Amino acid sequence: MSLNICFIGAGNLATHLSKNLKKSGFNILQVYSKTEKSAKELAGILNSGYTVSPEGITSDADIYFVALKDSAFDEVLPRVNLKNKILVHCSGSLPISVLEKYSNKIGVFYPLQTFSKQCEVDFLTIPVFVESGSKEVENFLVEIAKKVSGSVLVLNSEKRKYLHIAAVFACNFVNHFYMVAAEILKKEEIPFDVLKPLILETALKVQKMEPEKAQTGPAVRFDENIISAHVNEIKDFNNYAELYNSISKSIFEHHQKLK
Amino acid sequence: MSLNICFIGAGNLATHLSKNLKKSGFNILQVYSKTEKSAKELAGILNSGYTVSPEGITSDADIYFVALKDSAFDEVLPRVNLKNKILVHCSGSLPISVLEKYSNKIGVFYPLQTFSKQCEVDFLTIPVFVESGSKEVENFLVEIAKKVSGSVLVLNSEKRKYLHIAAVFACNFVNHFYMVAAEILKKEEIPFDVLKPLILETALKVQKMEPEKAQTGPAVRFDENIISAHVNEIKDFNNYAELYNSISKSIFEHHQKLK
Repeated sequence: MSLNICFIGAGNLATHLSKNLKKSGFNILQVYSKTEKSAKELAGILNSGYTVSPEGITSDADIYFVALKDSAFDEVLPRVNLKNKILVHCSGSLPISVLEKYSNKIGVFYPLQTFSKQCEVDFLTIPVFVESGSKEVENFLVEIAKKVSGSVLVLNSEKRKYLHIAAVFACNFVNHFYMVAAEILKKEEIPFDVLKPLILETALKVQKMEPEKAQTGPAVRFDENIISAHVNEIKDFNNYAELYNSISKSIFEHHQKLK
Repeated sequence: MSLNICFIGAGNLATHLSKNLKKSGFNILQVYSKTEKSAKELAGILNSGYTVSPEGITSDADIYFVALKDSAFDEVLPRVNLKNKILVHCSGSLPISVLEKYSNKIGVFYPLQTFSKQCEVDFLTIPVFVESGSKEVENFLVEIAKKVSGSVLVLNSEKRKYLHIAAVFACNFVNHFYMVAAEILKKEEIPFDVLKPLILETALKVQKMEPEKAQTGPAVRFDENIISAHVNEIKDFNNYAELYNSISKSIFEHHQKLK
């Protein structure tokens, strides 16, 4: 499949996805970003052209991947003529319908992963969720997705919204707790390194067993002594005591229901 | 070091620790658990004796590891004569002082990990935190710890308490969010499998970079549209909207301070 691709956006997701599409043999024609540094940097990696103005976006590509912040869609897309082009976005949270006013061949191509520019990821392991109102575009997107990922699923906008909420819990909120833990340790001058095996094992356990079966600790045992001692220890540390309480309650209630 | 060990407790932690001590050449003389099945099972693995009564606990061991639920200490320990024995507990949350009334050679031996009986872990990677009022006992415990772990640290009760709180955030609370995510997906009939690469990558990222630098997602960008849409979608799902709100707020506030 010889295909010319344009990337609208040059952030973390755009960087990883475009690099992997290129590695799979697709040609990345151009990268757009309003930040010249980002556009230039990614274009350098991809050996592609770049532009910092929506009006400068090429009309020669076969498919346009929109990997912008959700809030930037309406700034950029009205300024590009994409009417007869295949236009897909990579957002977990936006429905496919946000593209309707910009093209008549639209779709979604959502790789579910947390991307940071400096962390390499094995794209083959990343599930890609594809959607289109047109069976032809859907098949086309599935074919592209299968070149970069071993796990391609068709999913509609309604369900993708919940998938995205689940991902926020399993990734962003989880990472926030790593951060809270790091802060607590820092105050006590204990190196964060000591938590790394625990963090990794906690993630590895649920690769093999259901999270609710993997649960351990004071909340699932409803050990009130420990819970109230912990809450007391962190009562003046940001809103952490409040978080501690509400999550312990949530754990306990969930596991009571299971009994 | 030829040493006879008695385990008071036969739960997840006791199982993993005793197996690894045995593997390192120590002799496990006896296991106590009030549940016969647990005592017998672990004794079978260790090729040791067992008892289900505190009064049946041997007086022939050199060192006694207490790996009980915190609340069980005062049920079991008053019924055993350990006055001249080395007595250590394996609890993250209890201070060393809880052992004072039972022996005059006391310590703490706390391996920081989430243990489930059915999941093998590489004990060498697990940090072990050791404490004793006596330098002699401390050195002795460090020596034992170094036989099973590559990471041995001396830490007092006050700091260990905070270490334990950090571990609750980084493991139990994290695992609860895996569970919340699994529940949200289940309702939409999306397999939990699709989240596994994301969960693993989230944990792997903080092995190499600080959690606050690894943060991505709508809360750190303070994308109010997504946040309020998400909250609205899960408003009738347990207390998840409330959790979503308070954690998003905590993420945002933390990252505002960094700017």
